[in-house]
Amino acid sequence: MSSATPAAVPGISTVAVIGSGVIGRSWAQVFARAGCNTRVHDSDGAQMDRALEALARGLERDVADGFETASSARACLERVSPHADLREALSGADYVQESGPEDLTIKRAIFGELDRLADSSMILASSTSAMDMTEIASGLPGSARCIVAHPVNPPHVVPVVEVLPGKGTDPAVVSRTMEFLRLVGQTPVLMNFYVPGFLLNRMQAALLREALQLVERGVADVSAVDAVIRDGLGLRWALMGPFGVANTNADGGVREYFTRYRGAYIELMNDLSPTPGFDPEQIERWGQATDAMAGRASRDRLRAWRDRLVRGILRLKREQPAP
Amino acid sequence: MSSATPAAVPGISTVAVIGSGVIGRSWAQVFARAGCNTRVHDSDGAQMDRALEALARGLERDVADGFETASSARACLERVSPHADLREALSGADYVQESGPEDLTIKRAIFGELDRLADSSMILASSTSAMDMTEIASGLPGSARCIVAHPVNPPHVVPVVEVLPGKGTDPAVVSRTMEFLRLVGQTPVLMNFYVPGFLLNRMQAALLREALQLVERGVADVSAVDAVIRDGLGLRWALMGPFGVANTNADGGVREYFTRYRGAYIELMNDLSPTPGFDPEQIERWGQATDAMAGRASRDRLRAWRDRLVRGILRLKREQPAP
Repeated sequence: MSSATPAAVPGISTVAVIGSGVIGRSWAQVFARAGCNTRVHDSDGAQMDRALEALARGLERDVADGFETASSARACLERVSPHADLREALSGADYVQESGPEDLTIKRAIFGELDRLADSSMILASSTSAMDMTEIASGLPGSARCIVAHPVNPPHVVPVVEVLPGKGTDPAVVSRTMEFLRLVGQTPVLMNFYVPGFLLNRMQAALLREALQLVERGVADVSAVDAVIRDGLGLRWALMGPFGVANTNADGGVREYFTRYRGAYIELMNDLSPTPGFDPEQIERWGQATDAMAGRASRDRLRAWRDRLVRGILRLKREQPAP
Repeated sequence: MSSATPAAVPGISTVAVIGSGVIGRSWAQVFARAGCNTRVHDSDGAQMDRALEALARGLERDVADGFETASSARACLERVSPHADLREALSGADYVQESGPEDLTIKRAIFGELDRLADSSMILASSTSAMDMTEIASGLPGSARCIVAHPVNPPHVVPVVEVLPGKGTDPAVVSRTMEFLRLVGQTPVLMNFYVPGFLLNRMQAALLREALQLVERGVADVSAVDAVIRDGLGLRWALMGPFGVANTNADGGVREYFTRYRGAYIELMNDLSPTPGFDPEQIERWGQATDAMAGRASRDRLRAWRDRLVRGILRLKREQPAP
């Protein structure tokens, strides 16, 4: 996908990225490598400089790792332009991806300004991981074109995007956003209504709660719990979600699996652990155990390794798709 | 690992595999490819024939997929011998891996017989996914050498093994089992005491409960929930467990991550969904939605694909280990 010569997405040729932090700059790479003119806005000039530098460095690494060719990386970079002025960034854009601070007051102010300045046909999407677009866009004349498109960090590596309309979002905006995100190479998933944590953080919290409590109760240590995911369940979950896993776990598929293990699952689910206190001493213990396990590698190196291998797994899945 | 010429594991050169079902035959491949003489027992001759045939076919596929060489596959197969007689299967073995039916009465009967027939130095391990060795081996003269070694299906593909001593298990048996499983190429993780579902099924149940309820509540459909794992969280979890993920999600690591999101996690964890009823209509809905998502590929082909890609991910991790 990223190494082919991309064409601009039909109907959406120019994208504005609002906010050049870690998420915004990764979004810029998603859009630019798909062939979109990508106009990045940040009122903080120093942050914008860091973002452009990080993007260039990241692309160099992608070339070295074989995920981009030198020419595709150069073309990608050339499609990205910085704009200190918001109105200028929005000029000609068909889709806006906002990635500002996670604060309702700030988000409401940004969306008010975007709605005032942007042509009425422009889709206004937010990267928020927790807020309800019904609240962010409440009272705006253009609330029907506002939508949540929550990525996983960093979006240019991890494809899934949670798409969540507000109560007043136009269904055409929903389907156009889904299509656009698919065309730029992401995996958009549609939520029908708001729940705290959306899909991803709810499932992450569910697994994490049990993981933390297995350690807290002394059943096993941090490295054992992590290994069970990393060298066990996670190997399947990189290929199939929980329904897909259940479907392959019994010869009769999901129906046989859940019918046979109904009683066992009800008992086990009712026995799952409550929310831990997250007390400072508890957090400090988790920190020490994780330090001991993770060794001395810097977080930057760990993240670069993680992103390289995630892309390796995605390449494997692309080359050998599910039957 | 599997393509190098293996040597017998120091101190353990002969293994007895009791039960030649899906788990037993996969265990046989683990031990035989690591260089152990592998004596498989099953009183059901037809099942044993099927097992040997499945093993040979699986090894052919492994050769075709590049996970074994023709000669390593041949040598692996030659190390496996079938034994209808239990006493004969145990002869000369240092380690026994029992993979019989998941029924306490049957397990107790098998372990009683194993304990009676096996030399006193032999380790007796069970593949049970749910039972407590304290109960299985209760009252046996040799309860100190009995231990749970619960694999993920199939163990010759997925490395993690949950090692769980009973209350009377000799600590030397625990450490010898951990070392042996490591030497044959698995990832043993130690549990300090029994909890229902062990580590793996508890964490799986926690994630599954929330996944099922997100669908039941109508927040999203089965394909969206599965995509969030498969193209989102699962890509990381194939590389890092929940502590490793938290550690890379904030510049200050686990401490900063859990301190900063303490309030958000407590709120979200307290909002997680209760256990669903697993009613027949509910299960039928999940079945239909999964059918629609998984398409018409046979489950055998899906499993073969899953196993091939899991091994591809493991090869990626071996070639590019974490820094």
